[in-house]
Amino acid sequence: MPSKAEQARETRQAILDAAERLFAEHGVGEVSNRQISEAAGQGNHFAVGYHFGTKADLVRAIVRRHASETEQRRTEMLAEIVGSPDLREWVSCLVRPATDRLAAQGGPTWHARFLAQVNTEPALRQTVIEEVVATPSMRANLDGMFRLVPSLPEEVRKERGAMSRLLIVHVLAERERALHEGGATARPTWEATAVGLIDAIVGIWLAPVSIAR
Amino acid sequence: MPSKAEQARETRQAILDAAERLFAEHGVGEVSNRQISEAAGQGNHFAVGYHFGTKADLVRAIVRRHASETEQRRTEMLAEIVGSPDLREWVSCLVRPATDRLAAQGGPTWHARFLAQVNTEPALRQTVIEEVVATPSMRANLDGMFRLVPSLPEEVRKERGAMSRLLIVHVLAERERALHEGGATARPTWEATAVGLIDAIVGIWLAPVSIAR
Repeated sequence: MPSKAEQARETRQAILDAAERLFAEHGVGEVSNRQISEAAGQGNHFAVGYHFGTKADLVRAIVRRHASETEQRRTEMLAEIVGSPDLREWVSCLVRPATDRLAAQGGPTWHARFLAQVNTEPALRQTVIEEVVATPSMRANLDGMFRLVPSLPEEVRKERGAMSRLLIVHVLAERERALHEGGATARPTWEATAVGLIDAIVGIWLAPVSIAR
Repeated sequence: MPSKAEQARETRQAILDAAERLFAEHGVGEVSNRQISEAAGQGNHFAVGYHFGTKADLVRAIVRRHASETEQRRTEMLAEIVGSPDLREWVSCLVRPATDRLAAQGGPTWHARFLAQVNTEPALRQTVIEEVVATPSMRANLDGMFRLVPSLPEEVRKERGAMSRLLIVHVLAERERALHEGGATARPTWEATAVGLIDAIVGIWLAPVSIAR
């Protein structure tokens, strides 16, 4: 018989899985704790609140579940390219931890669409930034990248950072959705999708800057 | 006293406005015809169905309201750059009809977020493609652009087309949302946002293509 701690761990996993799927499909603001509890097979409608607190706490827990693996993978990748003069390799470390994870699942995923949904709510986006962007590996990654990018006005640097984030998030979410619904995908694999994303993001960072009137 | 036809026109406008706003904020799948009728001040909960038919028809009517103006603006812009060898000018015709419209509103807008929501539903995205992308001006715009882009494998061309669409849609939606909520924006104006988007999209199309394994 599973111990009480084990049962609680399983309940928490079931809630995280159900919440990720429901948030991915309907948007974070559109799903109630009650719906999540039901989808997770919890008779008690307060299960979400009991195990996770507020909805923001729940979102953070889902983000964290993926972030720690991503962080580890990025740290390993960065160790392999210390001092590299090739911008592509640094951009690769931004993109591949996410695409490698999606590829490794082997079956259906919801994580890419979940992140796209979270990205559309400013308060929740802040959570992602804290958990995923303001990490030691991401800092090292961006520092390495900026050394190889021509000096840019601060507003352009911010803008291109946001564009890189939007492109990664929405290209992966759109591909995940197409796989889910049997639609067409531009590229046959997550690996090929990573290659295309890396090329495009390198193109964005190296693009000449026009003066805005 | 307004005529019957006039009243019907006003009711239709009120429904389109309310639907665009609700879809922008909650997602198309999350909003009922009943909610739209109420937000449009219609006592009759069948008003949406009566005036527009299905939800897909309603989405198409909202898209069309903007598409005809965009189409006209793009046609004018293209007439000014016939035969231009400058890729930037062609990409500008992709971006500016949208940013000019947002700037011209002068007040709060929902259209950019509405389009971002519609983009996340494959069936609805098809509507946008029919109304916005498969138009004479867009065809001429893309043909002119492709003449100035190095020859690309078909899958890369499709991928970069999708990336350009995702970048325009989500950069504009994120800026509209930030304006709405008083958050920070990378650029001070829609015009400056257009300049940054055009630079980035030119960068994407001119980026060298790596071989995917």
